[in-house]
Amino acid sequence: MASNRQKEIALAAVKLFEQKGYHATSVQDIADEVGLQKGSLYHYIHSKEDLLLQIAHEAITEFNDNLQAVLDTDMSAPEKLVKAVENHITVSVSNMETTTVLLREAFSLGDPQHQVIQDLTDKYVDLWTQVLEEGARSGEFHVREPKVVALAILGACNWVYRWYRQSGQLTPSQVARVFSDMFLNGLTSDNHPGVQQ
Amino acid sequence: MASNRQKEIALAAVKLFEQKGYHATSVQDIADEVGLQKGSLYHYIHSKEDLLLQIAHEAITEFNDNLQAVLDTDMSAPEKLVKAVENHITVSVSNMETTTVLLREAFSLGDPQHQVIQDLTDKYVDLWTQVLEEGARSGEFHVREPKVVALAILGACNWVYRWYRQSGQLTPSQVARVFSDMFLNGLTSDNHPGVQQ
Repeated sequence: MASNRQKEIALAAVKLFEQKGYHATSVQDIADEVGLQKGSLYHYIHSKEDLLLQIAHEAITEFNDNLQAVLDTDMSAPEKLVKAVENHITVSVSNMETTTVLLREAFSLGDPQHQVIQDLTDKYVDLWTQVLEEGARSGEFHVREPKVVALAILGACNWVYRWYRQSGQLTPSQVARVFSDMFLNGLTSDNHPGVQQ
Repeated sequence: MASNRQKEIALAAVKLFEQKGYHATSVQDIADEVGLQKGSLYHYIHSKEDLLLQIAHEAITEFNDNLQAVLDTDMSAPEKLVKAVENHITVSVSNMETTTVLLREAFSLGDPQHQVIQDLTDKYVDLWTQVLEEGARSGEFHVREPKVVALAILGACNWVYRWYRQSGQLTPSQVARVFSDMFLNGLTSDNHPGVQQ
């Protein structure tokens, strides 16, 4: 039973951290949200910071696992890039509150908790960089700075949580397709009409 | 004299909001940082929230003014895109603390203050969209969803504050060039080798 209760508490924390921010959310707020006394809540959690760590850890781990699974296929590098963008954007939008907490609130973790999330984030950047390096090796991508390009693509995808609304005209998959069309064209051609180099 | 004091207070607030986050920074922290009693600080500011609004407002206004100036030139659309990316990234990196407060902390503003920043942010997205629409009209860009592409480019540029370190190998201008090379190639070509459409 504790396990269900812990999931319920984590969901309440995600909701409150997204709405009010981590620092503005008190343990009392979380207790109120799940209908527990504050003292009873501490039977299920160690601290508010542990809740934030748990939420951010699960979120970044899901992003990493999804991208590793794409890398482990025998798709071409362009196909991997399309799939990676699709996965990132659809997962971000499906779990908008969790993504917001990961991307906006995790900086509030103290060390060593913050370092745990930073290391997993660095790993995620490395996985994106691998997609680009694969395409560079195979000659499918023209890319001189694979890590910087990876950070550009990841930045574009990460920013989606800031502006995407379910009420908008495009589905997450359609947004992903617009993004990956531009990235793929950008990486597979090599000319800049109209601009002095 | 009040004006210099107010600038000093705003600088102290930027520093603290960036380091600790807006909610975790107290008015007492700001008073300590500038060597004033808390009561004296209130001679210069109305509230902590007004400081956040002022910081975010100045930051987004600078981004908007720079991009409007680019739009007002007679450069080609590709040249405007290159210049816009260069401006955004170099200003972000030169004012890293302010950019962080704008992009990470401004959500903490209550209404109507938050709406002021949201409206200016929407205007910034509109200006980026205009660059893409100009290129679409002139036939220089292949772009079916200019606003979504604008948000992709702006997201990539906004994310730079999260990973750029002065100790890295590339200057802000070099990062901007890697970014705009990919975006320009992506917008000026129209093929996707290796991927089923």
